[in-house]
Amino acid sequence: MNEDAAVRHAHPEDLPRVVELVAEHAAYEKAAPPAPGLGDRLAGLLFGPGRPRLRCLVAVLPDGTLAGYATCAPELSTWDGVEYLHMDCLYLTEASRGHGLGALLMAAVRAEAHALGLTEIQWQTPVWNEGAIRFYDRLGATSKEKRRYTLPTAHPDGAPSLH
Amino acid sequence: MNEDAAVRHAHPEDLPRVVELVAEHAAYEKAAPPAPGLGDRLAGLLFGPGRPRLRCLVAVLPDGTLAGYATCAPELSTWDGVEYLHMDCLYLTEASRGHGLGALLMAAVRAEAHALGLTEIQWQTPVWNEGAIRFYDRLGATSKEKRRYTLPTAHPDGAPSLH
Repeated sequence: MNEDAAVRHAHPEDLPRVVELVAEHAAYEKAAPPAPGLGDRLAGLLFGPGRPRLRCLVAVLPDGTLAGYATCAPELSTWDGVEYLHMDCLYLTEASRGHGLGALLMAAVRAEAHALGLTEIQWQTPVWNEGAIRFYDRLGATSKEKRRYTLPTAHPDGAPSLH
Repeated sequence: MNEDAAVRHAHPEDLPRVVELVAEHAAYEKAAPPAPGLGDRLAGLLFGPGRPRLRCLVAVLPDGTLAGYATCAPELSTWDGVEYLHMDCLYLTEASRGHGLGALLMAAVRAEAHALGLTEIQWQTPVWNEGAIRFYDRLGATSKEKRRYTLPTAHPDGAPSLH
């Protein structure tokens, strides 16, 4: 599969399939499904005016099917005082795993970082995702265990104004 | 301490002290110390031209000492198709913990998210940081355990070019 599959940047016409893959990815990680309208929101983030920060790479099988995707964007490290490339997603359909497509997507993300002049890539995976952990460890990536928090912005006590 | 301490946005003249706090924070998390020149790099990220994405909030004691800081920036969620506010750092010197300054900094980060029109804040802490975990859990934040990866961009096999 590897020799015939290709990785390229997503085009606007890929979005319906990318949204399906995002939904599969969220289900795989036992997260809530995407809210309606994700295709439109991603269109704005990926193909909107200006210089969109988010990038989406897709793995394409010889028959034209998209078998997976990766997204990434430059983010800011306070400790280093520089931007790095954050890989927000890397996902392959179950049937397309184990054929080298993950390595192709990672190589494309590295190429993206290189093109942006960024020297580091960071990402995270659930601690129970053993297949992903084996794959990332084989790449030579280093990792730390973190607790990742989410909090709605709204504050019942009201938010202070700052000067 | 809480009644007399204040949280405000960092000014350029705060940077030498912010860099000290960043170094303390990195040491506390058993990470490598900041590379030389961090003050200059942060000046560019925080006070450079355009609309800088990174924001730095500082906790100021009555005597004018900076006892802690938080940094945050809008980042991109593929699954949601929107930006959220990523809190990159929240740190208080050991002597200034337990007096409500952490809550003041978090309230300021929430205000920042609100001002930017972002509905969610995300951040992470090491799994061994029990004090921080108790503090964040009390706020009502939800969390998941993640393995956070870092990889240099450079690829020994060379990176493919994409079309």
